[in-house]
Amino acid sequence: MAQPSSHVTPPLKDELDIVIPTIRNLDFLEKWRPFFQPYHLIIVQDGDPSKNILVPDGFDYELYNRNDVNRVLGPKANCISFKDSACRCFGFLVSKKKYIFTIDDDCFVARDPSGKEINALAQHIQNLLTPSTPFFFNTLYDPFREGVDFVRGYPFSLRGGVPTAISHGLWLNIPDYDAPTQLVKPLERNTRYVDAVLTIPKGTLFPMCGMNLAFDRELIGPAMYFGLMGEGQPIGRYDDMWAGWCAKVICDHLSLGVKTGLPYIWHSKASNPFVNLKKEYKGIYWQEDIIPFFQSVVLPKECTTVQQCYLELSKLVKEKLGPIDPYFQKLGDAMVTWIQAWDEQNSPAQKAEAPVAGVKKN
Amino acid sequence: MAQPSSHVTPPLKDELDIVIPTIRNLDFLEKWRPFFQPYHLIIVQDGDPSKNILVPDGFDYELYNRNDVNRVLGPKANCISFKDSACRCFGFLVSKKKYIFTIDDDCFVARDPSGKEINALAQHIQNLLTPSTPFFFNTLYDPFREGVDFVRGYPFSLRGGVPTAISHGLWLNIPDYDAPTQLVKPLERNTRYVDAVLTIPKGTLFPMCGMNLAFDRELIGPAMYFGLMGEGQPIGRYDDMWAGWCAKVICDHLSLGVKTGLPYIWHSKASNPFVNLKKEYKGIYWQEDIIPFFQSVVLPKECTTVQQCYLELSKLVKEKLGPIDPYFQKLGDAMVTWIQAWDEQNSPAQKAEAPVAGVKKN
Repeated sequence: MAQPSSHVTPPLKDELDIVIPTIRNLDFLEKWRPFFQPYHLIIVQDGDPSKNILVPDGFDYELYNRNDVNRVLGPKANCISFKDSACRCFGFLVSKKKYIFTIDDDCFVARDPSGKEINALAQHIQNLLTPSTPFFFNTLYDPFREGVDFVRGYPFSLRGGVPTAISHGLWLNIPDYDAPTQLVKPLERNTRYVDAVLTIPKGTLFPMCGMNLAFDRELIGPAMYFGLMGEGQPIGRYDDMWAGWCAKVICDHLSLGVKTGLPYIWHSKASNPFVNLKKEYKGIYWQEDIIPFFQSVVLPKECTTVQQCYLELSKLVKEKLGPIDPYFQKLGDAMVTWIQAWDEQNSPAQKAEAPVAGVKKN
Repeated sequence: MAQPSSHVTPPLKDELDIVIPTIRNLDFLEKWRPFFQPYHLIIVQDGDPSKNILVPDGFDYELYNRNDVNRVLGPKANCISFKDSACRCFGFLVSKKKYIFTIDDDCFVARDPSGKEINALAQHIQNLLTPSTPFFFNTLYDPFREGVDFVRGYPFSLRGGVPTAISHGLWLNIPDYDAPTQLVKPLERNTRYVDAVLTIPKGTLFPMCGMNLAFDRELIGPAMYFGLMGEGQPIGRYDDMWAGWCAKVICDHLSLGVKTGLPYIWHSKASNPFVNLKKEYKGIYWQEDIIPFFQSVVLPKECTTVQQCYLELSKLVKEKLGPIDPYFQKLGDAMVTWIQAWDEQNSPAQKAEAPVAGVKKN
């Protein structure tokens, strides 16, 4: 085969934004330059808005700090978390693109077993552009990968699959463990490269990590709300989990697919387990009630859009989880505010307007 | 680390039978000698009982041909298929062991990416002896493998898992495709080694292949009936599928686990797609009704043993699938006969007796 031309247009170049929440200079982008430079970045600056975040030259980006979030959303800005990477969902909201890839700034380019650098974004795009198969398990994993198909006994009527809404990527080196597991296994590293992509079956929940995640904004965007975390909230590190639980039940209801597996990124640094424990401990016992709630939730068939599903879910959260802690009342309200903000920013009129960015550079 | 001693007792040596259905001399066992020789084999000879099947020297085995099946089961022998590898379930029935590994005689030892020969049986045993996690998906796959654990957001109350009833292994080289896929992709080979074991979530069906399969006979044995296939039946190549659908809904009902993934075997030879098409074509359209049946089946909570579940299922099969074709009435009856035969052969009195074997050698 001929070498690929350097003039080949990267896939979905004009239809995908890369969203990065950060509190520091984005030197990590240097490692990603060959893969990310053609794409537009939305940087959500967390914490002190007076701090200047440096972005390496040559990247096309818009950057929002807390002042920008407040300016753009006005009173609705209170649904966006502060001092927590949950603020990344603001980037999902102001994007005008069909697809989002979001990545943490401590994630670097991983290598496959042959030593080749993994283009995580390209794999996510492949995952999103091929169907999912949530209704029946294919034992050879993703039947839409090259060199594989549906196995004997897979019903033919289900082989068309459904549109893929979410592509959940994994992490080599530092695994995404909770604080108790970090404390018990401080030296455990993920060295196993599992060469698979698979659909998470309908009716099954999973722990969605926001570190290396892509989704179709048009299909599932309004469900990708990362909740109320960080400053002023009783909980942290459950932002992506919350989004994952909500998004999965809505995907199941709307017959949309969620894939997990490839691509891997290289997660460089374990966060402090003591700090994490403080953020997580309420979540660790609350989730014992939250999971059964999401496992049993049934959305009315009248709910045919993500927004409708999400508003219904917000009611159920207040009703069923509210008794656990007043926090869930507040969270239910914030879910409603989020949808209002989403609809404002994504109205047909808004879409035609210029970006709302604070700092824009390209 | 020190080299493993050659005197180490193979795991479960006295608690596991290897069941092999065959119509030919078992030369393939030569390749498996280092792994299988310590174990007892149950060979079920399919087809002409007057044919002499040669087993390589040094293996401890009992061999049953059709005459033996008839002698052991009497009138109940009609539930055991003839001229079809579905006859393997007779071996499950007469085994007195807790665990079964069953393998086809065209399956050889595969190699992992490092070139090392894979001890498929050892991996199955590891899968069976560690819990399954059917209630929530772990994104780093089997949390009971070395070097991995449950990820952040996995509810702690679910981390104990449930007992594993079934371990479903995969195939390198010739994938387990149906006839239409074989015809369309005659040259497709499975070359991808996916280094994962995972639990198939509760409520999700999968296509269980009998080529490389292990299970806990005490937990799920009576559900491992391979149906009525082959001579005199309108269908073939759905024996393992049938067992898989039945076993999975019963595992889900009884909170037992089903794992799939490692180990791989090397599947040497594709069967004839034209012959397969003839065997399969009714199954290919029947399964469009069978799958929704199994997806929606609810077993009464009064059913607390596999036998009770299976008899209940036999009634539902006759009631719900009977209208498709008279075959399902016959199959429902055979499911009842199978349970009667199982209970006869596995009564406490029977268990204490000597094996029922025709030819026994060790």
